[in-house]
Amino acid sequence: MDFRGSHIISVNQFDRSDLKRLFEVTAKMEPYAARKLRTRVLEGCVLGNLFFEPSTRSRISFGAAFSRLGGKVCDTTGFQFSSMAKGESLYDTSRVISGYVDVIVMRHPVEGSVQEFADATHVPVINGGDGPGEHPTQALLDLYTIQKELGRNLDEIHGLKVAMVGDLKFGRTVHSLSKLLSLFEDVSLTLVSPDELRMPADIIEHCRKRGMKIKETTELYAGISHADVIYTTRVQQERFTDAEEAERHRGSFVINQHVFEQYCKPDAVLMHPLPRDSRPGAQELSEDLNRNPKLAIFRQTDNGIPVRMGLFALVLGVEGEVEKTAEEVRWYAPDSYGVNNSVEV
Amino acid sequence: MDFRGSHIISVNQFDRSDLKRLFEVTAKMEPYAARKLRTRVLEGCVLGNLFFEPSTRSRISFGAAFSRLGGKVCDTTGFQFSSMAKGESLYDTSRVISGYVDVIVMRHPVEGSVQEFADATHVPVINGGDGPGEHPTQALLDLYTIQKELGRNLDEIHGLKVAMVGDLKFGRTVHSLSKLLSLFEDVSLTLVSPDELRMPADIIEHCRKRGMKIKETTELYAGISHADVIYTTRVQQERFTDAEEAERHRGSFVINQHVFEQYCKPDAVLMHPLPRDSRPGAQELSEDLNRNPKLAIFRQTDNGIPVRMGLFALVLGVEGEVEKTAEEVRWYAPDSYGVNNSVEV
Amino acid sequence: MDFRGSHIISVNQFDRSDLKRLFEVTAKMEPYAARKLRTRVLEGCVLGNLFFEPSTRSRISFGAAFSRLGGKVCDTTGFQFSSMAKGESLYDTSRVISGYVDVIVMRHPVEGSVQEFADATHVPVINGGDGPGEHPTQALLDLYTIQKELGRNLDEIHGLKVAMVGDLKFGRTVHSLSKLLSLFEDVSLTLVSPDELRMPADIIEHCRKRGMKIKETTELYAGISHADVIYTTRVQQERFTDAEEAERHRGSFVINQHVFEQYCKPDAVLMHPLPRDSRPGAQELSEDLNRNPKLAIFRQTDNGIPVRMGLFALVLGVEGEVEKTAEEVRWYAPDSYGVNNSVEV
Repeated sequence: MDFRGSHIISVNQFDRSDLKRLFEVTAKMEPYAARKLRTRVLEGCVLGNLFFEPSTRSRISFGAAFSRLGGKVCDTTGFQFSSMAKGESLYDTSRVISGYVDVIVMRHPVEGSVQEFADATHVPVINGGDGPGEHPTQALLDLYTIQKELGRNLDEIHGLKVAMVGDLKFGRTVHSLSKLLSLFEDVSLTLVSPDELRMPADIIEHCRKRGMKIKETTELYAGISHADVIYTTRVQQERFTDAEEAERHRGSFVINQHVFEQYCKPDAVLMHPLPRDSRPGAQELSEDLNRNPKLAIFRQTDNGIPVRMGLFALVLGVEGEVEKTAEEVRWYAPDSYGVNNSVEV
Repeated sequence: MDFRGSHIISVNQFDRSDLKRLFEVTAKMEPYAARKLRTRVLEGCVLGNLFFEPSTRSRISFGAAFSRLGGKVCDTTGFQFSSMAKGESLYDTSRVISGYVDVIVMRHPVEGSVQEFADATHVPVINGGDGPGEHPTQALLDLYTIQKELGRNLDEIHGLKVAMVGDLKFGRTVHSLSKLLSLFEDVSLTLVSPDELRMPADIIEHCRKRGMKIKETTELYAGISHADVIYTTRVQQERFTDAEEAERHRGSFVINQHVFEQYCKPDAVLMHPLPRDSRPGAQELSEDLNRNPKLAIFRQTDNGIPVRMGLFALVLGVEGEVEKTAEEVRWYAPDSYGVNNSVEV
Repeated sequence: MDFRGSHIISVNQFDRSDLKRLFEVTAKMEPYAARKLRTRVLEGCVLGNLFFEPSTRSRISFGAAFSRLGGKVCDTTGFQFSSMAKGESLYDTSRVISGYVDVIVMRHPVEGSVQEFADATHVPVINGGDGPGEHPTQALLDLYTIQKELGRNLDEIHGLKVAMVGDLKFGRTVHSLSKLLSLFEDVSLTLVSPDELRMPADIIEHCRKRGMKIKETTELYAGISHADVIYTTRVQQERFTDAEEAERHRGSFVINQHVFEQYCKPDAVLMHPLPRDSRPGAQELSEDLNRNPKLAIFRQTDNGIPVRMGLFALVLGVEGEVEKTAEEVRWYAPDSYGVNNSVEV
């Protein structure tokens, strides 16, 4: 793929060499994301950060990533554009906004709408999540996290054993990540979920066709015991059509410190797309794991910044210019962001 | 008018020499708006972009224009200020915000409120629309579009034939544009609307006194046949007091490719303040016009950026400084923004 | 206190030398706040301006202050984070946001929540108000205003006579300001309020222990007659449990020009945390005072900018670097912001 000027709508656009290119640029962005360096490469450039559906985390992550490249951000956070309520088509909205800004991030509750929006403009559009559809930058940062946590680069990812746990039916992040992993040789996937929340057949089919080994199970402990990476998602009670079924599964997919010590490989990496549900009765990743150094969930979200910086730099074609205006950061930056699960920066 | 430090509240403030001055500066802003050049002339300057009524399009247009001058934007998008709900007067709100920012854009649902707000402060206030009152920057960008589309400058605008179509009673943009056009000699205006939605008599009176030739009609095809510029607006069904009347008019003011070919001069310019209503039964400017090169509606909204940049530069008195920090843009910018109705930039 | 890297949660963190240090830096920020100079010391630095409860005034004040230091702002204004609605803990939210931004301002309706948020991160957190708890930057700008209005520095604040008027029970600003004033010798405080809205006993106790002379009264005119500074707050009718009591007090705590001339020292300074209630029947500080040069309420809110700039500079450790990138402002800035109660800048 030629990143320059491209829309980023789906993980299906990426092959292995694209991922390699993106992660090379991402790695160069790390000192900027970690507040060691600053750059003004995108000074004067304007991002339209359009969230037709609220998502504070993603919106700030995109906005902060763009800001760290020196650009300016115009945010929109309403459920609806005021003009769309007056009957404006996505085509018109897209074309209008394209006259104002240099690059667009868009989240929308309706699957396919980001593609439709992108079809009307030559200004690069990045999909920030379209309902049950795709959220490609999440999958990209997940894959970046996997290779970084394992200390391997993408050429060494073969042989990897991944377990995905929880709601695999509605969780778009596990669908997209599965597709990305299927680009690599000899990756095996264990899918652990209640029967009602199994991974959709077409995703499994897609991955198997590419040679991925996939096992499905409802047994948490067996499912995670050989995994190098355990990727957990929220199981929302309201997803079950049958209340008894929901009750029967309550707690069956909880990973806590005891489960980790008893059933996981000691170097298994624990991931989660966040937010994790910390209310009593949920706790798919228990808070007693907060001091466990293998809990990678916060390093994972941190990686969103350099990955999104890398993507912005590539679609705007400035990936080779970032360093030219680099300067050392002189304001206070902590050695680690969090009080427990720290990342050395 | 001395722009420097002035409030911009109404089109009534402008005479022909003011418009000429504004459009000279606007023309200089075009390469910045078109992402050929960038400037940091307003680096460190802060805009209070206060939208007491939602308007994503206008808010982003003002914000992006200010950003392209190098400034920073503080947005407010609520229906109400939290402090105003506690009984704060417009006077107090105005004075408080004036201590924070360097220039203010304000939209408010109540006519006259932007003037009241401006009366309390020496920080320049630009009216971003006050209910049924004024929205001067829309009229200014409309006039800028007209002269640019016709390839004439303001001194050559005489003899122009304009048709305004649709809801001329409630559409504040046609009121303000009519007033601006009445500053020029020998402009004739044909007003095409249902009886219930005729242009208010005081606007017609105002323009006729200045020598404008005005005709009113309910017949679309006759009304548009001689026009150099056709300015269409939305007809909202709920504006009619009589449902039968509404039904009778449904579709009578639709311009589509067939109507254009049959009834318009081949070089007639099609304009619309947007949003255009693209729902079935509305379609005041049909989507089958999207590939018609005379459909100027997107070039029109694009012009909002250089016009608003010009206005900011003038009220802040930096119109002569913009070029001093100009640099070439090196990030990817498309040759045209949209996929159909393109603007070469 | 070592400001660098510190959370600013409560006025209890400050001793006299901290205040002196902060106000030295604040004084240096004044020409930047007054648009004489601009700086890019925090270019590339990102503020997370998190308002879980709406407060346009405070949000813009923090955002503008940070912008004037050259930084970029990511705003959040919802009542709730979308992720918190899905069961995310404050711990997780804090840690996630800390990976995105360099410093955080947080307002939250629940007392103690800002502290809980700060406990999870090494990124500096500034309390922007936590419900009935604290709003330390308001108290700091109040104290800064007092010494500036009196033309005395902090070492000369002894002997000061302050009257606080209105709702002293629920007004967190008077609680925090009282605590700060109790750090100085020989300050006397007269508390003027209806019986139902008296200052909480623990605050009075805290201040008396530190040697402050405190008198309580329900009589406005006697209470304010000797004061150097009169600090008024809104009395919200709904605070009274007894409607008759509310009615009896209506208007008893109004200060207008007549009351000022009749009962106040001629050089008494009139302050208010704002918003002031200007609806008929409220008017705790009447609008007929707007031309009275002793009405300091707008100079007070103006001081929020340099105080917050000073605080940002100190917690980010750049207080010595601000001048290095200083440049003269060349855009239009008025000599005074407001039309009446002007501040010469």
